[in-house]
Amino acid sequence: MEISELQDVLRRTYLGRDARRGPDATFRWLTEEVGELARALRNQDRENLEHEFGDVLAWLTSLASLTGVELSAAAERYSNGCPKCGSIPCRCGFE
Amino acid sequence: MEISELQDVLRRTYLGRDARRGPDATFRWLTEEVGELARALRNQDRENLEHEFGDVLAWLTSLASLTGVELSAAAERYSNGCPKCGSIPCRCGFE
Repeated sequence: MEISELQDVLRRTYLGRDARRGPDATFRWLTEEVGELARALRNQDRENLEHEFGDVLAWLTSLASLTGVELSAAAERYSNGCPKCGSIPCRCGFE
Repeated sequence: MEISELQDVLRRTYLGRDARRGPDATFRWLTEEVGELARALRNQDRENLEHEFGDVLAWLTSLASLTGVELSAAAERYSNGCPKCGSIPCRCGFE
């Protein structure tokens, strides 16, 4: 699936709800899902782990839509390898 | 860009570094980037906002690779609209 496709379907599915909630409460939801991901990492339940990665990605995408950011454009920074040294694999130790 | 393509390029760029750091420290990096996104939301600098969305997405993707999760599979949950009611737009108020 394309990143832009995911953002598009989530926008059509949830943008109304997200706009009513607003960016601050949507950011709070994102962090709640990050917490659930933390728990899933601890429990090592693989199905649940995939589920929680999906939820974090979905809330991150919703927040991007709400703030006018295209996640595919944001991802471009990494599309040719390390943004600092331009190498694959990274040779500069960039974090 | 495909979600799988982003995960692949990040895996080739950073997996060695990520594996040495381990999942716990990589999760800590993810939350640090979530904090930077919070600051970018407050400052309303659009270029920086896109940058921080990209960084959160990249660290989330790195953590997925490190724990054996394919982010594209995780995103499938949302590919046909709301996972609970199956509608676009969501009709069930699912969050």
